[in-house]
Amino acid sequence: MHPNYPTEVTVPAGAPVPAGVPVPDRDNFGIGARVTLAVMSPDYVEIILRSLRAADATGLEVETGDVSTFVAGREPDMLRYLSQLISAAARSGAHVVASVHLSRGCPGEVQCELPGGVGPLHSEIVELEETGVPAAGEWALYPLEDTGRNGVDPDHMRDIYAAIDYAKAKGTFVKSEHFVTRLEGDVARILETVAAGWVLVGRTVQHVACHLTLSINSPTGR
Amino acid sequence: MHPNYPTEVTVPAGAPVPAGVPVPDRDNFGIGARVTLAVMSPDYVEIILRSLRAADATGLEVETGDVSTFVAGREPDMLRYLSQLISAAARSGAHVVASVHLSRGCPGEVQCELPGGVGPLHSEIVELEETGVPAAGEWALYPLEDTGRNGVDPDHMRDIYAAIDYAKAKGTFVKSEHFVTRLEGDVARILETVAAGWVLVGRTVQHVACHLTLSINSPTGR
Repeated sequence: MHPNYPTEVTVPAGAPVPAGVPVPDRDNFGIGARVTLAVMSPDYVEIILRSLRAADATGLEVETGDVSTFVAGREPDMLRYLSQLISAAARSGAHVVASVHLSRGCPGEVQCELPGGVGPLHSEIVELEETGVPAAGEWALYPLEDTGRNGVDPDHMRDIYAAIDYAKAKGTFVKSEHFVTRLEGDVARILETVAAGWVLVGRTVQHVACHLTLSINSPTGR
Repeated sequence: MHPNYPTEVTVPAGAPVPAGVPVPDRDNFGIGARVTLAVMSPDYVEIILRSLRAADATGLEVETGDVSTFVAGREPDMLRYLSQLISAAARSGAHVVASVHLSRGCPGEVQCELPGGVGPLHSEIVELEETGVPAAGEWALYPLEDTGRNGVDPDHMRDIYAAIDYAKAKGTFVKSEHFVTRLEGDVARILETVAAGWVLVGRTVQHVACHLTLSINSPTGR
């Protein structure tokens, strides 16, 4: 845990849960992702379909639409799927752009069906197998806390800076740009960085979203 | 103004500005966008370069990188540019995916150089010329308020629902999905909807970001 992260909220063992307050658990916490894969090739349909088949969806709900593919499940399964999906498309050699959107704990009604006020959920940092595919990414993290909890005041920039410091320690951080942080490295290392920021902030904030745009095999790359 | 939006914060005419508090103004408010255009065609480089040239960048700072193009300036100029850029690419007939990220009032240091605590900035809703290009989009809005201001408490879901109600009234709303709202219509109408939510929430919240993924000419569309 990076020192800039606020102290995690812990419920003492045996402490009674107040009546009517739902307990956060992995099955009702709205942990999921949306991913849009764009492949700049005349064979894009075949490459995208092949990549969707190549990714291991064990343990996940996957629903492909015309704008994005929705993925829901536990964080390690979800991140493994995203890493395999994106790297499979990149191995075609075509220029690939992937937009990845992670969300947890949304207290919405229609969108996520999670009751409000359930509080944050502790998850572990995810580790992924190296893909061998280098990428450049732009990342934005959104801690969405209105009121604070257990003496920890909301401060979305504090949480964002802590996640950026984590990326610096991990070696994927390149620089801060307007509105986003630039990351470079293996697709798996970038996804690990982004997921870690999301999970770590999610230990004190219920609703956390992040967005990552990944560019691979770009002709205007380095 | 939709009734669900919180009452706008107004400073009485002639009220003294407290010493040391920066006044929000359009030139230091970090109003900008990032856009990534993906064109699924062997001619994607030529189509993207032609579209960048076709869009009217008057009044804007535009900087194209290998992951996204950064655009900064007044809201009407910025939205006109995005609408012209995306619709130009779509007129190639190729399947186009555009990722659009709008941001205003970020109190970050490295990223946006806006001092914290300047408060919200009033902007007008933007109107755009019809493009004739139909699109489907997935939209997420992030009001990033930590402390409230002038008696208006932070409530990010209240602000998001107000923006969704605005989209319903405008006719671009199709349905709520997990983490996003699905919009359909002319590219200009979708961008107007997204920008309106961002501007309206921005009348009470300093830091507001939103993300839109647009899909045009999709072979899996309707």
